[in-house]
Amino acid sequence: MKNAFYAQSGGVTAVINASACGVIETARRYPDRIGNLYAGRNGIIGALTEDLIDTAQEPDEAIAALCSTPSGAFGSCRYKLKSLEENRREYERLIEVFKAHNIGYFFYNGGGDSADTCHKISQLSEKMGFPIQAIHVPKTVDNDLPITDNCPGFGSVAKYIAVSTREASFDVASMCKTSTKAFVLEVMGRHAGWIAAAGGLAADADHDLPILILFPEIVFDQAAFIVQVKAKIAQYGYCSVVVSEGVKGPDGKFLSDQGLRDAFGHAQLGGVAPVVANIIREELGVKYHWAVADYLQRAARHIASKTDVEQAYALGKAAVELALEGRNAIMPAIVRTSDEPYAWEITAADLADVANVEKMMPENFITADGFGITDECRRYLSPLIQGEDYPEYANGLPNYVTLKNAAVPKKLGEFEL
Amino acid sequence: MKNAFYAQSGGVTAVINASACGVIETARRYPDRIGNLYAGRNGIIGALTEDLIDTAQEPDEAIAALCSTPSGAFGSCRYKLKSLEENRREYERLIEVFKAHNIGYFFYNGGGDSADTCHKISQLSEKMGFPIQAIHVPKTVDNDLPITDNCPGFGSVAKYIAVSTREASFDVASMCKTSTKAFVLEVMGRHAGWIAAAGGLAADADHDLPILILFPEIVFDQAAFIVQVKAKIAQYGYCSVVVSEGVKGPDGKFLSDQGLRDAFGHAQLGGVAPVVANIIREELGVKYHWAVADYLQRAARHIASKTDVEQAYALGKAAVELALEGRNAIMPAIVRTSDEPYAWEITAADLADVANVEKMMPENFITADGFGITDECRRYLSPLIQGEDYPEYANGLPNYVTLKNAAVPKKLGEFEL
Repeated sequence: MKNAFYAQSGGVTAVINASACGVIETARRYPDRIGNLYAGRNGIIGALTEDLIDTAQEPDEAIAALCSTPSGAFGSCRYKLKSLEENRREYERLIEVFKAHNIGYFFYNGGGDSADTCHKISQLSEKMGFPIQAIHVPKTVDNDLPITDNCPGFGSVAKYIAVSTREASFDVASMCKTSTKAFVLEVMGRHAGWIAAAGGLAADADHDLPILILFPEIVFDQAAFIVQVKAKIAQYGYCSVVVSEGVKGPDGKFLSDQGLRDAFGHAQLGGVAPVVANIIREELGVKYHWAVADYLQRAARHIASKTDVEQAYALGKAAVELALEGRNAIMPAIVRTSDEPYAWEITAADLADVANVEKMMPENFITADGFGITDECRRYLSPLIQGEDYPEYANGLPNYVTLKNAAVPKKLGEFEL
Repeated sequence: MKNAFYAQSGGVTAVINASACGVIETARRYPDRIGNLYAGRNGIIGALTEDLIDTAQEPDEAIAALCSTPSGAFGSCRYKLKSLEENRREYERLIEVFKAHNIGYFFYNGGGDSADTCHKISQLSEKMGFPIQAIHVPKTVDNDLPITDNCPGFGSVAKYIAVSTREASFDVASMCKTSTKAFVLEVMGRHAGWIAAAGGLAADADHDLPILILFPEIVFDQAAFIVQVKAKIAQYGYCSVVVSEGVKGPDGKFLSDQGLRDAFGHAQLGGVAPVVANIIREELGVKYHWAVADYLQRAARHIASKTDVEQAYALGKAAVELALEGRNAIMPAIVRTSDEPYAWEITAADLADVANVEKMMPENFITADGFGITDECRRYLSPLIQGEDYPEYANGLPNYVTLKNAAVPKKLGEFEL
């Protein structure tokens, strides 16, 4: 009987631990098929350095609590394995570690890079005579994986941004007579505007709010933007702007990259929100405020989307079930079968089709003026933020779990990263 | 039978509308004692310009929904009346408007400045032969009003900051092996560190998180700060910093005021979070991230403290009841009768004792090193964030109410502000 290995990769989310919960709880239901389930401490680095965590030492209640705990419970890392040609040594080490611990199932929970790694492990282990079933569990707030209708992690960020944009807009609306008239919220999404688009959900038929979105897909046109801001302020008394960190100017440079220097001439790293706010101030002379959500948005388990939590869990569960069916080099993916009422099911996508493909926002999701979302976009996004799945609270705070993360004894020598 | 007037003043909060709800629902229970209840459109400006809102046109359900809607439903403003000597004209106009609309009760929902205005209206109306019972309903996220144990609005911001700090710390903890090692969150509170202190609640006996707080009460000591950050990173692998927007350096200037200029030499307004993050980068060379919560923190009704919502409502209700008892020039205030279990009651404070007094953090609430909160502080803060009071959701978003805000016909001529 083979053991299994699970690792978290790249930026963590509010629901990646729900996928871990799905993997572990499902594996525990098949004690006659899957031996030990090990996790990588700090992701794939844990596998390379043989720093494995014995998940068997965590009680069922702690594993269940993962479902409502943000962050990566076993640690994650940003560590991209180089190509096989450049660094075969690392891949061979991974397989050596897996062999030493009799690991036959590799569950890798991440985005595009980890799908690629997963695919290579599957191929190379076969060639090396120790075949490993490698299953990728999708995760990324960027929502940019192909094939799957959406990516776990995104729905919760989208909900956070939509809720925050609505709340801040209500706030500004009530003060704009004498105070702030422009509010700018900076959100994640360096390449694709999925998260920024979610800000558009804050306004709907019952909530008429003036929201402009700056997408990374659209080159920033300062004159056109100012015309829009001015018009919103004229009509509503104020304007909310949701800006993606990845917005670029006509020169192709990030708008956030303004060569800021302090009074001593030292370079300072700023965000894009203050840049946009300053543009509004200089052009229109109105009072402004700005916010940068940063990690708050992807860690906000307190306002996670129930749909997102359910899908994250279901994909972890499906990964184990697919492995037990003998599948290899695949990723369980979400297929949307209906927009309204929203319905979805899980399919298996070939990793060969997933690795290194980025899914961008379709053009018909952005309005012709470039500053808003279309009805098609709303139809796509809206189901993903449905439902609340509140964590348990103790002393007024979410009672998030921290695991024991006990180490598995090593069997191999050191390995230098 | 006299009419009543209610207005919201200064920065709005997640629960100021809960106080409005308390005032209006209570007034509606006494139709034989209180005639119409008018609200000022955009706060006191509405009274000065005779722009009154007829709250009778809002159905009971809309008024009830105020209890779970952030922002100021009637509009608020930053408009400080000058002293009586400097601008007697404005006070006389207010009383003229009140007289024209037969207003005998003035409920003013705000912070220190509005307590002062309230007090003066009471005194002057008496002298002018049209006595008005002026009752101040406390509200301020800054928590700096005297006499009352705490101020409605603060508990919810405190909860938001504590929750966000815990969530972001979990996120950073799981990534720090290869990525961000220092996270900086900028919070409100220009003069007093109450909000920053709430970040300290994120860590407790069950959640061992390395959190440093930069209070506006403590002069920023860069060397001491860096020693602390370094120690936390050495012990935990990362460090979270909660910094008040009002932190000042040894030169007495705001730390955020770095004389930032862009590549063209234009002055840029930045926050304090990127400044602190840059200091950490320069001194320790570690990867960092920073967030600025700005309005998100005070508008976050989705994660409001139940205690805060209940107190905000209770103070609005008490204001009307005190008025009906014939009280004048007072503010209903919260008296804490027990820390654990937490218990409170409402008393009436004389406005003469409230106006123009700022309550600062007691010295024994800040640890000797200047970077944390003491047990005394924790004992004070903890009850204020207890309980969740989730709003209703529709389509994945909080279904906040927008009132009709129908105007009351004017009876007087124009007034120039």
